[in-house]
Amino acid sequence: MSHAPIDPVDLTAELIRCPSVTPEEGGALVLLEALLSGAGFECARVDRNGTPNLFARWGAKGHENSFGFNGHTDVVPVGHEANWSVAPFGAERKDGFLWGRGATDMKSGVAAFVAAAVDFVRRTPPDGAILLTITGDEEGDATDGTVALLDWMVDDGEAMSVCLVGEPTCPDRMGEMMKIGRRGSISAWFTARGEQGHVAYPHRARNPVHAIAQLGARLSAHKLDAGTDHFDPSTLALTTIDVGNGATNVIPAEARMTVNIRFNDLHSGASLTEWLRTEASAVAEATGVDIGMEVKVSGESFLTPPGPLSALVAEAVEAETGVRPGLSTSGGTSDARFVKDHCPVVEFGLVGKTMHQVDERVEIAQIGQLKAVYSRILAGYFAG
Amino acid sequence: MSHAPIDPVDLTAELIRCPSVTPEEGGALVLLEALLSGAGFECARVDRNGTPNLFARWGAKGHENSFGFNGHTDVVPVGHEANWSVAPFGAERKDGFLWGRGATDMKSGVAAFVAAAVDFVRRTPPDGAILLTITGDEEGDATDGTVALLDWMVDDGEAMSVCLVGEPTCPDRMGEMMKIGRRGSISAWFTARGEQGHVAYPHRARNPVHAIAQLGARLSAHKLDAGTDHFDPSTLALTTIDVGNGATNVIPAEARMTVNIRFNDLHSGASLTEWLRTEASAVAEATGVDIGMEVKVSGESFLTPPGPLSALVAEAVEAETGVRPGLSTSGGTSDARFVKDHCPVVEFGLVGKTMHQVDERVEIAQIGQLKAVYSRILAGYFAG
Repeated sequence: MSHAPIDPVDLTAELIRCPSVTPEEGGALVLLEALLSGAGFECARVDRNGTPNLFARWGAKGHENSFGFNGHTDVVPVGHEANWSVAPFGAERKDGFLWGRGATDMKSGVAAFVAAAVDFVRRTPPDGAILLTITGDEEGDATDGTVALLDWMVDDGEAMSVCLVGEPTCPDRMGEMMKIGRRGSISAWFTARGEQGHVAYPHRARNPVHAIAQLGARLSAHKLDAGTDHFDPSTLALTTIDVGNGATNVIPAEARMTVNIRFNDLHSGASLTEWLRTEASAVAEATGVDIGMEVKVSGESFLTPPGPLSALVAEAVEAETGVRPGLSTSGGTSDARFVKDHCPVVEFGLVGKTMHQVDERVEIAQIGQLKAVYSRILAGYFAG
Repeated sequence: MSHAPIDPVDLTAELIRCPSVTPEEGGALVLLEALLSGAGFECARVDRNGTPNLFARWGAKGHENSFGFNGHTDVVPVGHEANWSVAPFGAERKDGFLWGRGATDMKSGVAAFVAAAVDFVRRTPPDGAILLTITGDEEGDATDGTVALLDWMVDDGEAMSVCLVGEPTCPDRMGEMMKIGRRGSISAWFTARGEQGHVAYPHRARNPVHAIAQLGARLSAHKLDAGTDHFDPSTLALTTIDVGNGATNVIPAEARMTVNIRFNDLHSGASLTEWLRTEASAVAEATGVDIGMEVKVSGESFLTPPGPLSALVAEAVEAETGVRPGLSTSGGTSDARFVKDHCPVVEFGLVGKTMHQVDERVEIAQIGQLKAVYSRILAGYFAG
């Protein structure tokens, strides 16, 4: 039986028509499971706490050559629908673009790797396995998405040798960037508690606003590092300070501040927590104001050092697009931060410019290019 | 015709029964005008923009020996009336105290100087004049109170040679403190406007929270001065910082901060405005964030240097109370800040501990002492 190749543009359009706003499945995973099952993939829905996830494997479980793709079908809300020039879930084609929520982030990526994987196993069944992990919770808390799939795989004896996440990675031009790691992210919430008083008698009060301003100035003036071989310098941002005191003759009792740090491989959530605590203690001691702190580490930094996997991807990208991708670790976080605990992981996808925006759209030609890149990566990987 | 001396306790009680919460006249000035007119004082209501004020003079207009008293009959609101253990406008006498809103701030002071002045001119008519300026707007904006009286006096050829403000000046013990000046007060509102962005890309944003924290740290760390002969050191307080950004992955566009400075005679509203502007400009330049500033000078600092007037008052206080008063410039602002532009001014009154509080009350014995102090001051002044 011979099959026509899967058109990744049609598949992207079908997925866009599934209104899979986190945490809704929206029909997207059901559609993919049917397609993959029909192509000989063993499929399993790995839902956890109401979050829908799909696992699919072609080939032998636990094969030493197991190539993984990871992606998500959930999308962010459409925002003000009236501001869209198309129906957000209509998958309209015009001006060379395919329009709709999730067009770039990342239904086109999922469609491209599903199409590439199905066509590949049908035409040249490899000596190995292809594993797809597709989650419905990347845009939300991400606690029951890729993490749930990976937990289930460990329990079930499933493993990937390497993994490629299909998130959009190119800022402006198709092919220009792939990711070999990500910075980590930590947020800290400080609460300074002093003693209220009248501004005319500051010696009878302890001003928490002074403590917070001093701490904010210290933190923001500190240079965390100068970057490393593969990472930009770590950055710190004070995101808010709030007191809410409307009386100019009153010294308030409390002031709050939030800080977010995006950090490279010179730091960890633990080392930065320690540093923040030390800074807060120094200011507390100098000012006599109590400073409480709560922290949340959203992700540690990680790096898949340049090697065979990144070379394979970069060569495939250059062959199909004519552009040699830079090896970057910039940007926000992605599910690669979970995958990296299981196997080497890199990321490559198309141009992400309109992601999360009104009138999200993808250049139709890029979807075909992306499928071609993924196909070439599979061929290269199984060729040894 | 011989008159019995006026009982200042009875008069205070009558005034407390007038519910003269700013800007209500409440019957207080009407009552005083009747009493003073009956004692031969020329009276004039000097109301401006709905604010009631009373001017009264005994003796010749423009006399070179014109002694002035200044005070106010308006009071702050009662607050939660349920928390009072007496009726706030009931003027109840119990446990040696006279209870009610305005008992200390400052209906007792007004009653004491009115009683002293009336008795004095009846018994020993002086070669000179006694001028009383009593406002109904000291606790409010104070824009149409003592200022209106002084404006009117200038227009009308009325002048005081010296003036005593009858505000409560003693922290704990009757007689322990008089005021020969006050610190000035200036507030500044800063608005930092940067450029919004994602925390993962801080180089594409300009963070106004960093600018505000830096400015706040600079201002609060700066030592304005070490005090002067008659003044405590000037003090600066950051009273609030507000951003209102709930997203830890967003750098906000705007941050606001308010600062209040209580300053001594080494500074002026203008010099501090200039200093604040320079500091803001330095931070703006260093951070690339625009920083706007608005200022309001509520009062300049002033000093009536120790001399005949303060000596006269101090000796009278010591003679009547057995306590030699300290010459202070501490505390908040008072209407003396307006009077000082017209003539030398000092302040002396009773213990202000319960002012503005629930269960405001005055020790009954102190009211008589205060009248005696004021009587002695008048006698001393006109004795030359």
